[in-house]
Amino acid sequence: MKISLGEIADQFDLELKGDASVEISGIASLVDAAPGELAFLFHSSYKNQLKTSNASAIVLRGVDSVDCTIPVLISDQPRLAWARIAAFFDPAPRHKVGIHETAVISENCTLGAGISIGAHVVIEDGAKLSDGVCIDAGCFIGERVSIGEGTRLHANVTIYHDVQLGYDCIVHSATVLGADGFGFEYDKSTASLVKIAQVFAVIIGDKVEIGAGSTIDRGALNHTRIGDGVKIDNQVQVGHGTSVGSHTAISGCTAIAGSTRIGSYCLIGGGVGIIDNIEIVDQVEITAMSLVSQSITEKGRFSSGTGLMPGSDWKRSIVGFRKLPELIKRLRRLEKKAN
Amino acid sequence: MKISLGEIADQFDLELKGDASVEISGIASLVDAAPGELAFLFHSSYKNQLKTSNASAIVLRGVDSVDCTIPVLISDQPRLAWARIAAFFDPAPRHKVGIHETAVISENCTLGAGISIGAHVVIEDGAKLSDGVCIDAGCFIGERVSIGEGTRLHANVTIYHDVQLGYDCIVHSATVLGADGFGFEYDKSTASLVKIAQVFAVIIGDKVEIGAGSTIDRGALNHTRIGDGVKIDNQVQVGHGTSVGSHTAISGCTAIAGSTRIGSYCLIGGGVGIIDNIEIVDQVEITAMSLVSQSITEKGRFSSGTGLMPGSDWKRSIVGFRKLPELIKRLRRLEKKAN
Amino acid sequence: MKISLGEIADQFDLELKGDASVEISGIASLVDAAPGELAFLFHSSYKNQLKTSNASAIVLRGVDSVDCTIPVLISDQPRLAWARIAAFFDPAPRHKVGIHETAVISENCTLGAGISIGAHVVIEDGAKLSDGVCIDAGCFIGERVSIGEGTRLHANVTIYHDVQLGYDCIVHSATVLGADGFGFEYDKSTASLVKIAQVFAVIIGDKVEIGAGSTIDRGALNHTRIGDGVKIDNQVQVGHGTSVGSHTAISGCTAIAGSTRIGSYCLIGGGVGIIDNIEIVDQVEITAMSLVSQSITEKGRFSSGTGLMPGSDWKRSIVGFRKLPELIKRLRRLEKKAN
Repeated sequence: MKISLGEIADQFDLELKGDASVEISGIASLVDAAPGELAFLFHSSYKNQLKTSNASAIVLRGVDSVDCTIPVLISDQPRLAWARIAAFFDPAPRHKVGIHETAVISENCTLGAGISIGAHVVIEDGAKLSDGVCIDAGCFIGERVSIGEGTRLHANVTIYHDVQLGYDCIVHSATVLGADGFGFEYDKSTASLVKIAQVFAVIIGDKVEIGAGSTIDRGALNHTRIGDGVKIDNQVQVGHGTSVGSHTAISGCTAIAGSTRIGSYCLIGGGVGIIDNIEIVDQVEITAMSLVSQSITEKGRFSSGTGLMPGSDWKRSIVGFRKLPELIKRLRRLEKKAN
Repeated sequence: MKISLGEIADQFDLELKGDASVEISGIASLVDAAPGELAFLFHSSYKNQLKTSNASAIVLRGVDSVDCTIPVLISDQPRLAWARIAAFFDPAPRHKVGIHETAVISENCTLGAGISIGAHVVIEDGAKLSDGVCIDAGCFIGERVSIGEGTRLHANVTIYHDVQLGYDCIVHSATVLGADGFGFEYDKSTASLVKIAQVFAVIIGDKVEIGAGSTIDRGALNHTRIGDGVKIDNQVQVGHGTSVGSHTAISGCTAIAGSTRIGSYCLIGGGVGIIDNIEIVDQVEITAMSLVSQSITEKGRFSSGTGLMPGSDWKRSIVGFRKLPELIKRLRRLEKKAN
Repeated sequence: MKISLGEIADQFDLELKGDASVEISGIASLVDAAPGELAFLFHSSYKNQLKTSNASAIVLRGVDSVDCTIPVLISDQPRLAWARIAAFFDPAPRHKVGIHETAVISENCTLGAGISIGAHVVIEDGAKLSDGVCIDAGCFIGERVSIGEGTRLHANVTIYHDVQLGYDCIVHSATVLGADGFGFEYDKSTASLVKIAQVFAVIIGDKVEIGAGSTIDRGALNHTRIGDGVKIDNQVQVGHGTSVGSHTAISGCTAIAGSTRIGSYCLIGGGVGIIDNIEIVDQVEITAMSLVSQSITEKGRFSSGTGLMPGSDWKRSIVGFRKLPELIKRLRRLEKKAN
């Protein structure tokens, strides 16, 4: 994969300053780039890295290009240019159209044109795969699952019965869609927890990406719903009956409990916890490892937790935290005296 | 699946007020229910939803039924009635008794009557599956694993050697039982960590359910034990040698370190952390995302963390948290002066 | 597996006090040990357990052996002795050299001598497995993956294309190496998130162990790197482009975001969160469930969070936490008055 700077400028609609014939064989960070590679300056504050970079060309904003001595590709949005150019250099294997001989596919499935089904895949009765669907090795597709055009499942994904996926989705390995939600009711007569059948499914929109090792549970009294364009990172848990609005991004290891409604265009950090049966409006940002324990009714940024401290200082602060109600009383007493 | 209200009343021992011939084809939430569906009123505070619900009948408490104009099924415990009725409407596929031709089963295994083994399952030497066991596609069952009557493993579960599961358990996809506990000892002579073989196993009781993507490690100096009736949600981690008492429920993404002893009938919230080598008595409740860093010796409810705040307020509060030890000193100084 | 105390003393270079002919059939904790088993006293504070233990012999420090009436094996480092002796009693199945007939292996792979490939394994084009590599059932090995001598993958591991693993590594089940990092850029023109191809890979050193259900993402602008001797527990997430220095240990359910550089010989507790683009020096210890939200420039122990409290007390303390900035103002006002 080699391409000249001139071709990159043409193909991705960027302004080139410098030698159009320079050949580019890959991309890299400013720090790591070797000759022949294209690097990116995302923010002026890293401009000092330009001087020592071995990159053969840089994508950057016009304002950052002033003193640059190597060829540059100018973009108002260097990160967006990166997203587009990176796809060109992606070494990810292309799908082989066809069904591997070791795949076990029920006779009652509907298979579109140009699909790719890997080794040891299992597809159960009534499943429906649209054109161009790609199911990598070892995936399990339950009964009546429906998968939209061009959607790709990486190896070892598990999808339970009746789950629906839209078009152009990507699901990474070891992810499980449609397992039973965590629903039990305590029965006094037997002093034990009785399982509540999770009779609804998971409905996932178009252009959704779900990371590796994530789990999205099926619903008990309504479907679990993931909106169009939602991006979910690795090891995220979405509880039964919860809905996530379109174009919301959820970072790794976040856990969302059941029957919660999350808005569109939210940014949810990593390791966040969101309790059940609450509502979060559109455009809410939650910082890493916060616990959302009540509804959020206004857009904005929200956090919980404490800052990181050296262990010995921290121990003194948590003693203080424990004493806070008492401290407030003592302060009030002093204020009364002083007035 | 259709059933009349009269039959539901009979079968689930509920009092019917209204037309017994009304046919019910499914269940749903009060808000989402369509005609032909049965909904549930779990709490009087949602009573206003009765008026606008399109459900054909409602399960509710007698006190909530007073003004109800549609047929009702009366139950002292509507959630328990729900658990029982939901099972009737469950569209989950029934097992097909038999062994799929692509399964690889060692000749030295013991297989009970009426078992179901899916495609591409692998069962190693000396495994023992009791009557009615159901192993879905892609599961791996290690050497000498023993699985009790009626227990079901969903697709792509992995069980390491010597693990024991009781009867009527359910294990969801991508879950791993019996992987090595995290045990290493620092060796100064090589300046590296030496692995400690995890020679014990995992022993799981009867009627246990384990969610998707969870991991329960094998023990180093004693077995890891999960009591009867325990319910474990998705992406839960249980460390080596830890024991969980019967009928305890553990919500998603909770991490329990090794050699800890948790009591019976505990309720452990989502995203909770529990450190190693501590003891928690029976009937303890831990709220979401709390860290349990010492033993809990009395039943009750416990929490840690801070409440969610708008980001700018939160930043000021964590500055205050850092200063707490200093604030206490200043307060003490003022108090001395004032007295 | 039986071995006499005398043989254990010889083989593991320990000083024996007592009958060398006593036969040992296994190891156990002091509390659980049955006759015939060897137990360990790791710390003098548990010395009272010696009196009631049914163990046939104890490994302990010389200072703890004074009044001991049963045979003892003396070691300056009983935990290190344990690590070595446990390996002898490990019942884990030995690999069967050979390739299972159901494995699907591309013709362009390089396979070393003495390798073991389990049932239903899939190995794609250009993969390179060195001598003694062991791939358990159901694993997926992507294109051009390279795996060093003696490395073992447990069942149902997934490795994406171009990932490199060193020698003598262990990877546990359901773990995913090299899935796409979480990289998207917001495109105003379509009001949606554009995927950034993750064109780099994951490079893992020698003697690394990775627990079950963990995920290590491939990089976007540079490789994700795990140093030699690193030990990673279950359900750990490592983001794209992050590097972990050699001999660092990371406990379960910890999430590390992308482009972060972690030093060598760090100890990272369970459930920890580490944000993106920061640097942590060598020999840093982070306690369980802390959030690391900025670089750590000095070695030492760091924490965040609050201690566990009974729910009602905790509610009062988090009210106080919210009021901290106001409390500081009130305190300052009083101090002014008093001076």
